[in-house]
Amino acid sequence: MKTMEELFHALLQDVYYAEKQLTKALPKMAKEADDAELKKAFTDHLEETEGHIERLEKAFEMIGKPARGKKCEAIIGIIDEGKEVIDEAEDEQILDAGLIASGQAAEHYEIARYGTLCAWAKLLGKPQIARLLHETLQEEKHADELLTRIAEKSVNRHAMSA
Amino acid sequence: MKTMEELFHALLQDVYYAEKQLTKALPKMAKEADDAELKKAFTDHLEETEGHIERLEKAFEMIGKPARGKKCEAIIGIIDEGKEVIDEAEDEQILDAGLIASGQAAEHYEIARYGTLCAWAKLLGKPQIARLLHETLQEEKHADELLTRIAEKSVNRHAMSA
Repeated sequence: MKTMEELFHALLQDVYYAEKQLTKALPKMAKEADDAELKKAFTDHLEETEGHIERLEKAFEMIGKPARGKKCEAIIGIIDEGKEVIDEAEDEQILDAGLIASGQAAEHYEIARYGTLCAWAKLLGKPQIARLLHETLQEEKHADELLTRIAEKSVNRHAMSA
Repeated sequence: MKTMEELFHALLQDVYYAEKQLTKALPKMAKEADDAELKKAFTDHLEETEGHIERLEKAFEMIGKPARGKKCEAIIGIIDEGKEVIDEAEDEQILDAGLIASGQAAEHYEIARYGTLCAWAKLLGKPQIARLLHETLQEEKHADELLTRIAEKSVNRHAMSA
């Protein structure tokens, strides 16, 4: 990699792969969640994630490259840790608390990556791409905040009485 | 895992492992960084990371458990992606931009995890542990903001002229 264009393209591929992986992980998380609000949060975020994929595809188009993912070890690790929680939790409320933690780790990975992509898109003189990815960044931040609210409102309290 | 105590303990082990991995990764990142401020940021954060490890060891002590890590696939993935940038970047300025992105992915992983640990420590009636880990959380947030400032101030501009 010799240019910022190439670095930007590589990170776009990383995040595209990550979002695709999340569309596989989120239905499982929604299925496992016991709390109704948490289940809904994961289901809603799956729909948002499909929108994030479409935005990334537009960004690929705008830089004249095919939409293609590049294996992202970070998201694989985050999702694997989430699966471990599902396997090891022997109580529904404990599982919910663990699912929220895993979901927030995934959100923060994306917050970091979209933050970088937005900064680089601006730098590369591509404000349209920056705006597009900024919308996704805001949705990831909101998803993270929503998980915090659900944890504080009910899940953590229920987990304590497990 | 049947209780919040066990879930908390497992996440403490995850983060302990992650911090230990970062003490190995940060000196390499500092060595590879070209920008003087970025080099200093990584070196300073290595010192902070050693403090985070000490705080985690205190937290283990307070819950009466030995300080022991548990393999964290997420941080391994994040660090591996950072190594890939080091291997693939053919220009010093491009490398710096990539190092900042990797550093911010690591910071965000920790921000997510310490956020969860603080919430769970409070829930478990362990305000001292919550306070201790909250200090680390703040340092991780500051480290992330510092990387943004360094990117905006010089690194991104230099990377564009690469």
